This record gives sequence, structure tokens and C-alpha cells, in this order.
Amino acid sequence: MTLNSTFTKELEVVENLIKKDLNKENIISGLYKYIFKSSGKKMRARLSLISSSIFKHKDRYKLAAIIELLHTATLVHDDVVDNSPTRRGNKSVNSIWTNSHGVLIGDYIYSKAFILMVEIGNKKILKELANATNDISQGELIQLDAINNIDITLNKLKKISYYKTGRLFEASAKTGALLSKINKSYIDNITECAKNLGILFQIKDDLLDYSKNMDLGKPSFQDLREGKVTYPFFFAFKNASLEDQKKLKGFLGTKKLNEKKAKSLIDDLSGIKKTQQLAEKYHIKTIECAKRIKNKSVCKEMIELANVAINREK
Amino acid sequence: MTLNSTFTKELEVVENLIKKDLNKENIISGLYKYIFKSSGKKMRARLSLISSSIFKHKDRYKLAAIIELLHTATLVHDDVVDNSPTRRGNKSVNSIWTNSHGVLIGDYIYSKAFILMVEIGNKKILKELANATNDISQGELIQLDAINNIDITLNKLKKISYYKTGRLFEASAKTGALLSKINKSYIDNITECAKNLGILFQIKDDLLDYSKNMDLGKPSFQDLREGKVTYPFFFAFKNASLEDQKKLKGFLGTKKLNEKKAKSLIDDLSGIKKTQQLAEKYHIKTIECAKRIKNKSVCKEMIELANVAINREK
Repeated sequence: MTLNSTFTKELEVVENLIKKDLNKENIISGLYKYIFKSSGKKMRARLSLISSSIFKHKDRYKLAAIIELLHTATLVHDDVVDNSPTRRGNKSVNSIWTNSHGVLIGDYIYSKAFILMVEIGNKKILKELANATNDISQGELIQLDAINNIDITLNKLKKISYYKTGRLFEASAKTGALLSKINKSYIDNITECAKNLGILFQIKDDLLDYSKNMDLGKPSFQDLREGKVTYPFFFAFKNASLEDQKKLKGFLGTKKLNEKKAKSLIDDLSGIKKTQQLAEKYHIKTIECAKRIKNKSVCKEMIELANVAINREK
Repeated sequence: MTLNSTFTKELEVVENLIKKDLNKENIISGLYKYIFKSSGKKMRARLSLISSSIFKHKDRYKLAAIIELLHTATLVHDDVVDNSPTRRGNKSVNSIWTNSHGVLIGDYIYSKAFILMVEIGNKKILKELANATNDISQGELIQLDAINNIDITLNKLKKISYYKTGRLFEASAKTGALLSKINKSYIDNITECAKNLGILFQIKDDLLDYSKNMDLGKPSFQDLREGKVTYPFFFAFKNASLEDQKKLKGFLGTKKLNEKKAKSLIDDLSGIKKTQQLAEKYHIKTIECAKRIKNKSVCKEMIELANVAINREK
């Protein structure tokens, strides 16, 4: 399974669009270059390009660049929030420079995205992206509040997955469709499909944190170390005896974690299996929605993304 | 000298507009309420109301609320950046909660402002505010880069004052005027006037940091302790012998500062006097611009604000 090379090539155009904007102040251009030096998967920008591929509006690369900028701004702020030393295998902004640099260059990138949005000047797109940005910050705040909280509900976990990840996937597809001015049913179907894809993506992300994988560019069991209750822990805890619950609590938020013991207990208590089942549920949901998209090539692309999302190892 | 009570009353409407928006998630509404519990001077929102007072557009309170939200978001992020324990005499968000909460609720407030902007739906206003937000983050980044930098130029200091403070004053007046759809000369004059007022405001802020004043709600000599070269230090350093320069360098970025000695040396080297002269220069500039505003009542209000800015003790 490989991603469609047409969109991969288009993403290079998007990347160049982002990179060509260099501020006159060295401190700003230095941070900016560093951040965009290492490319991520650009799933959200790809989604935007797929969604806007039916009618090739002149601003579709710009819109995809906006999506990538918004996503990057959230990552830079996330690294400050999580105190992450690395991002995509490189040192994070906050670890090379300071938290202050992370906060401010994040703000710079956010507002850059808004400047470009205003240039496109489509009110519905502006509304969707302003709302999505707000929802993402809500998702992160709710997650912050859920740290070390073993009483968290499945609904709250789903809200976090949706707000912090699904929401921008959704907005990427929706705004791409809005730009193309295709009919309402196309907009609704691809929006719903992308939302589920994003949630699937986040569930898979939570799973990957529980698997030793050096390629991921970040240490394993980071969520557990940070005290973040994600799906694997949640399902294991629900399934645990009082004694095991006590052990699980002991793992949560522990910097000096016994990874092997933690992994093995969460595995034994079906935490991994149940999370995989949830991922499969969202995989099916995504494919079902994709099949409702009338345009054959977009439908195929969305199914492909769903398969990539569930099978990804990093 | 007191501020016009009509606008003070209108600012209450603006405040209620801001306060009525409460998120369903306790963590978010808790942070939000805490932040807006203590009112600041709302100079920027007042400026917006003054500028939009000629033609009373239905959205002028909303626009003033947007300005206040944007300003507040920058303050919340600034407190993270500066690691400030207090804000307006109360504990800062980052000191009651954490830096992470500060970053994320700042993002929440920023994007809230963008949502409201999109509701107003005036493209020129959107453009101005997106650009202003970007410029503010640039000003803060340039300032960050200037920490402990004794080679900073006067031009760079002026750029910082303009970007981090003058820019939002400028945008507040400009967007208020744009909403009112008054003629170009009104827009240009009030914009230029507000820009100078904002720079004056920042110069005065730098001065106040060098004067012991408990009412300010923040510790004195904070800039010097943080290694921030501002006007008083800059002018003193330029005027100093090699020996005194060495002493001044010793004060910069020192947590255990001998306030009396530092103040006295900077004073002796005309750092305070020259900053006061610069403030007076911008006071005159502001008044000159104000006098070019054809509307008598707005002209009077702007002169009043200029006088308040130069005479303020906190």
C-alpha cells in the first residue's frame, strides 16, 4: 500500500509554498526554517488536496498550506505542553531554543495561516478553520485536565480524539470541498469520512505509543509516563481486578517506568486488543462513509487513507 | 484627567459580551472566568469603541470584544514566555495552573477572537487583525532575541515597541474606523494617531518598570531582571563610560538585583530622562495626528488618551 504519487507531488508544491515565506528577522526565519526542515506525513494537507481535487480551484495549494501551517502550530505548542524533547526524530523547538520560543513561533505560524485564509476570502472556509482551531485547543485542554485521571469516561476519551485530531482532519476535507464548491452531499460525505479517519488516526497513535518502535521519532510509553490515560490504559483498567488497578495506577505518570511490566499487564488485561477493535470499528466507519462519496477517484483515495491509517507502523 | 464615562459604560457591555461565553467543560470555563475576572484598563477596546463611535454599526461591541480577546491572549502567552507570577495584581494562569494551561487557553482565546471576526465578516477587518496578530508575535520574538543583548539598536527597540504594543493599538483604531465605513482620511489619521499612542504607551511601560510602584500589580525592575534591554537601560548604556558599562552589564539579567544601585546609575546616566524625552516626542506626535482627525469628539478623545498615557502612574 503506497500513497497516490500525484498528491505526493502536489504536496511538494505545498511545501515550497510554505518554505518560500521567510521573515527578514533572523530569529524568526531561523525558527521557521528549522520547523519546516523535516517533513511529516502531511496527512491533513493531503486530505485537503484530495478533497479539492475534483475542481482545481487556483487556491487549493494555498488551502493545503494553511492546513499544514495550522497543524504545525498545534505541534509546536504541543511540544511545549508535553515538554517533548523530540519531534519527527529531531529535537523539538523547545529543547533547542526555549519554551518561550515555542509559544511565540507557534503563534506566528497560527496567525500566518489566518493571513492566508483571509487572502482566500471564503467565509465558510474561514468559519470552519476558526472553529476547528478553537476545538483543537479545547481537545488539548480537556486532555490536560484528564492527566492522571483514572475516572475518565470512554465518551471523554472519544471527545479528546475527535477534538484534538479528528477535528482538523474533518476541517481539511470540508474546506477542500467547500473550495471546490461541489454539491452538499459530496461535502457532507467527505467531511464525515475524514472525521472518522482522524479519530482512527488518533486511536492508532495511542496504540503506537504502546509499541516499541524507534522509527516513530519519539520515545515509547510517553503517554503513560506523562500520566495521559489513553485507550489501551483505559480498557485495561476497566478490565482489571482491584489489585491490578493498583498496579496500573502505579505506572501512570511514572518517569522511571518498567516498560516491559506495564506493557505486559496492559496487554494481559486486553487493553491493546480492545483498542485495536476500536480502531477497526473506526476503520469500517471510514470506509463506509468513503463509499458514499460519489466521485470514484476521491472514494478510492479515502479508502486508501483509511487502510494506511490502520496499518501504519509509525 | 478622567476617561470619558460614555465609553467606560460601553466597555461594560463589551465585558459582559466576553464573559457570557462559557464553555461546557469546567476546565475551560474555569480558566476563562479566572482570566476575565480582573479587568484591565481595556485601552485597546476603548480605542476601538472611540474609533467606531461616529457611525454606530451593530457589531461595534463585538469588534471591541475581539480586540480585548486578542490582547488578553497575548498577555496569557506573555506570562508563560516571561514566567511571570502575577498579572494585574493577581496570580498568573501559569502560576496557578501550569505553563501548558497558559499556552492552550491562550490559543483558545485567540481562536475565539477569530471566530467572532469571521462572524462580522468584513474582509478588511479580518486582514488587519490577522496581520496585527502576526506582527505582535514577531515583536515578542524579536524581543526574546534581544535579551541580554547590549548591542541592540534604537531602531530595533522602536520596532519592538511598535510590533508588540503599537500594532494592536493601530489595528484597534483602524478596524473600528473600517467598521464605521468613514472616509479614508478619517481611517488614516486615527490609525496613525493610535499607532503613536501605542508606542507612547509602551515607552511609558518601560519607564514604569524602573519606578517603584506597588499599584502596578507587577514587581519593579522586571525587565532588567529578565535581561530585557529597554529604553532606560539603552540610553544609560550609550551614555556610559567603559567602567559604568561594565556595571550596567552586571545588572542585566540578574535575579538578585540591587535595585537602588541599578536605578541610581541608570538615572545618573540620563537613562530615565532620555526615555521621558522620547515619550514626550511620541506624546506630541500622537496629539498632532489627533488634531488632523476631522471629527471633533473623536479628536478630543484621542488627545485625552494621549494625556492619560503620558501621565499614567500604573
